Amino acid sequence: MGRESDILIVGGGPAGVVAAFTAKKYYPQKKITVIKNVRNGVIPCGIPYMISDLKSPEDNKLNYSGLEKLGVEIITAEVVKLDRVSKKVITKSGDSFRYEKLVLAIGSRPVFPPISGIDLKNVFSIYKDLDYLNSMVGKIKESKNILIIGGGFIGIEFADEISNLCEKNVYIVEVLPHLLSNSFDPEFSELAEVRLGEKGVEVITNVRVERLEGENEVKRAYLSNGKVLDVDAVILGVGAVPNTELAVSAGLSLGKGKGIWVDEYMRTEDPDIFAVGDCAGKRDFFTRKDAPVLLASIATAEARIAGANLYQLKVVRENKGTIAIFSTYISGLVLGSAGLTENSAKKEGFEVIVGRYEGVDKHPGELPDTHKIRVKLVFSRQSGILMGGQVAGGISCGEIINIIGVAIQKRVSLTELETLQMATHPHLTPAPTTYHLVMAAQDALLNYGLCR
Amino acid sequence: MGRESDILIVGGGPAGVVAAFTAKKYYPQKKITVIKNVRNGVIPCGIPYMISDLKSPEDNKLNYSGLEKLGVEIITAEVVKLDRVSKKVITKSGDSFRYEKLVLAIGSRPVFPPISGIDLKNVFSIYKDLDYLNSMVGKIKESKNILIIGGGFIGIEFADEISNLCEKNVYIVEVLPHLLSNSFDPEFSELAEVRLGEKGVEVITNVRVERLEGENEVKRAYLSNGKVLDVDAVILGVGAVPNTELAVSAGLSLGKGKGIWVDEYMRTEDPDIFAVGDCAGKRDFFTRKDAPVLLASIATAEARIAGANLYQLKVVRENKGTIAIFSTYISGLVLGSAGLTENSAKKEGFEVIVGRYEGVDKHPGELPDTHKIRVKLVFSRQSGILMGGQVAGGISCGEIINIIGVAIQKRVSLTELETLQMATHPHLTPAPTTYHLVMAAQDALLNYGLCR
Repeated sequence: MGRESDILIVGGGPAGVVAAFTAKKYYPQKKITVIKNVRNGVIPCGIPYMISDLKSPEDNKLNYSGLEKLGVEIITAEVVKLDRVSKKVITKSGDSFRYEKLVLAIGSRPVFPPISGIDLKNVFSIYKDLDYLNSMVGKIKESKNILIIGGGFIGIEFADEISNLCEKNVYIVEVLPHLLSNSFDPEFSELAEVRLGEKGVEVITNVRVERLEGENEVKRAYLSNGKVLDVDAVILGVGAVPNTELAVSAGLSLGKGKGIWVDEYMRTEDPDIFAVGDCAGKRDFFTRKDAPVLLASIATAEARIAGANLYQLKVVRENKGTIAIFSTYISGLVLGSAGLTENSAKKEGFEVIVGRYEGVDKHPGELPDTHKIRVKLVFSRQSGILMGGQVAGGISCGEIINIIGVAIQKRVSLTELETLQMATHPHLTPAPTTYHLVMAAQDALLNYGLCR
Repeated sequence: MGRESDILIVGGGPAGVVAAFTAKKYYPQKKITVIKNVRNGVIPCGIPYMISDLKSPEDNKLNYSGLEKLGVEIITAEVVKLDRVSKKVITKSGDSFRYEKLVLAIGSRPVFPPISGIDLKNVFSIYKDLDYLNSMVGKIKESKNILIIGGGFIGIEFADEISNLCEKNVYIVEVLPHLLSNSFDPEFSELAEVRLGEKGVEVITNVRVERLEGENEVKRAYLSNGKVLDVDAVILGVGAVPNTELAVSAGLSLGKGKGIWVDEYMRTEDPDIFAVGDCAGKRDFFTRKDAPVLLASIATAEARIAGANLYQLKVVRENKGTIAIFSTYISGLVLGSAGLTENSAKKEGFEVIVGRYEGVDKHPGELPDTHKIRVKLVFSRQSGILMGGQVAGGISCGEIINIIGVAIQKRVSLTELETLQMATHPHLTPAPTTYHLVMAAQDALLNYGLCR
């Protein structure tokens, strides 16, 4: 069977969905088809919350009805081949779809660490598939001892959620000295470690899982510190790699990293083929190096750029480089990071100026529901430009990190931030005399003798 | 008695305090004195919360111990004269203080509308004086019928707080068609009106209070719609005017508005005298007209500019113009506004493009504590630059308005906002596919046919 589309999008995750929505807005006369390879997809960032915070795992199902209402065709099939000469893709069942413009939004897949026993039953990886996740959630709920391998944000969110269930022993094992160390400096990682500890999670850092054992089902984990854990279920959260085979086998290049090479308009080497989201290569906003930032929020920003540029380049919608920007939540403690950490900036050879602030998120601090808040800002020493920020505190940190994100993307300077005009309110922010970002900027000026 | 200071700051509110802190950071070797005219000052934005949310009104007291620890001298006295020739100020009790550099942070005073009976007992104006406010709070607590004149943010915050007390009849009377109409377009004002109505507050708009009556104590209010209200206490929240007499009588000019004229470095016409906060004139960021924005957050931003520039101009710390940016809170409903509203922009002759978004502040929306969120963005039609934004929703709106504020101050364009990289998280923000600011920007592009 051969079918025709103007715009064909392969992939039904956030990048594919947003590419379709954006394409429909910019090119409403075009026929758009989305081919997704999972019958029931899920909202990726909501996956950990299928354990406890959501009443039903079904609440986290990805919904395509908005696209269908706009006339976008949604098809479930696995695309196995891309033929750039005849401009078509071919599915596993042999169907072919012709395109004028193709968007690859084919995502990433979980990394499997080289641990013996990783293929035992009840060792779960994070697939974005509702049916798979439903069975995983079911198994976790009936397990007593749960091991999470990997202390990135997926690992800590699962650890937090599982610790909300009764009578579970939860272990999180991280090979680096701290949790979340790709995105946070140690003083922020420690807040996450303390919070998880308070919830009864055993945080084990600087340790490797050497092997898993059991007969058919996983039963024990052997750690590099000599400990042996009884386990009923294991969750792998050690990262993901871009899906690129479809592109590579069609002759498209990868960038310097592992993703499909794209230019600032999100075009691959073939001007009629775009790549967005986890499968696409990214360049760091500051270092210009490959940035392996696999986040739905970055994926959707890329999808909006691609969707607009499909038939006509719109120069101001260019990808100026990826900033790693994200937030996480551990039972009320919010952590956010944007851009470079102090450690990562120094590692890249930047000379930096750092400013810190600790205070409360309301004023006066005697108001109910006041949380402590901690902010750290990292500036380039020579240019004074904001390169990164980290926040920890209550709910408001979820949007504070986006203030920092806009400031990074607009290259705000230290002194601009020091004299920022901002809204403050007793129930919502620190006092105007001590607004967090302003105080952190002033601290940076002071620490480095730039005040005088 | 004659005394000497290097840096003399007249005024102990947020502007005076921040000017002193900043001056101490930049010029640590200088002797700094703050003269405040109130024995016990208060945090201005916390005043309404002395009614119910704060356990004790004393929790809202302004604290000078931080400044004193740094060696700043704090004096309570009323300055009545400024002599620029001999470079000194004179207090009511005849003391004189010499200065090298003087910062006027002398604030504003409440406006009294021309209503007969306004001088009756139990008609209260908002003075930033703990002793006065304590007696006002006491009277309100023992009153049954309370009338608030003026539907600006002070009025609505008082109405909300008083409605938390048992068995009160609370009336808020506003002469304009909507509450908060200086800062919000009607569709946002209406949210405040509905919320207050739900709390039992009687919101009376398009109506004027014609006179107050009573013998000694206020007892009745006569409204322009013919209604007569029984009242035991009245709160005036109809605005404030800058205190400028000290400056004017010393020969300093006012700007085009009512505040003391200052340049971009916050200097008055006398290069050794700075003015900051409510007493200082402001120019709107976009219209360049006088901007009567009397907010502690703006005052502190100005104080930071002045504090740095006292002895040495630091060019990048200039005041680029005032954006009206603030937030308010009505029992969980947060409203924020920054820059121009659609109405105010049109009134000033700008052609605008408007984008809207309505959604939820978490994803999926089935998570506990999910709030509705509404965003409106106003862009210049010709340049595509963001000129203003309004938000309504839950707690996170308190910092969302500051994202908009940074974007305005950095002149972010419509298409930059459309492809913004932002952090999203189930518990903290809408989904990456529907992030509020991005969606509102895309709505603006779509509405005005700029997508194609």
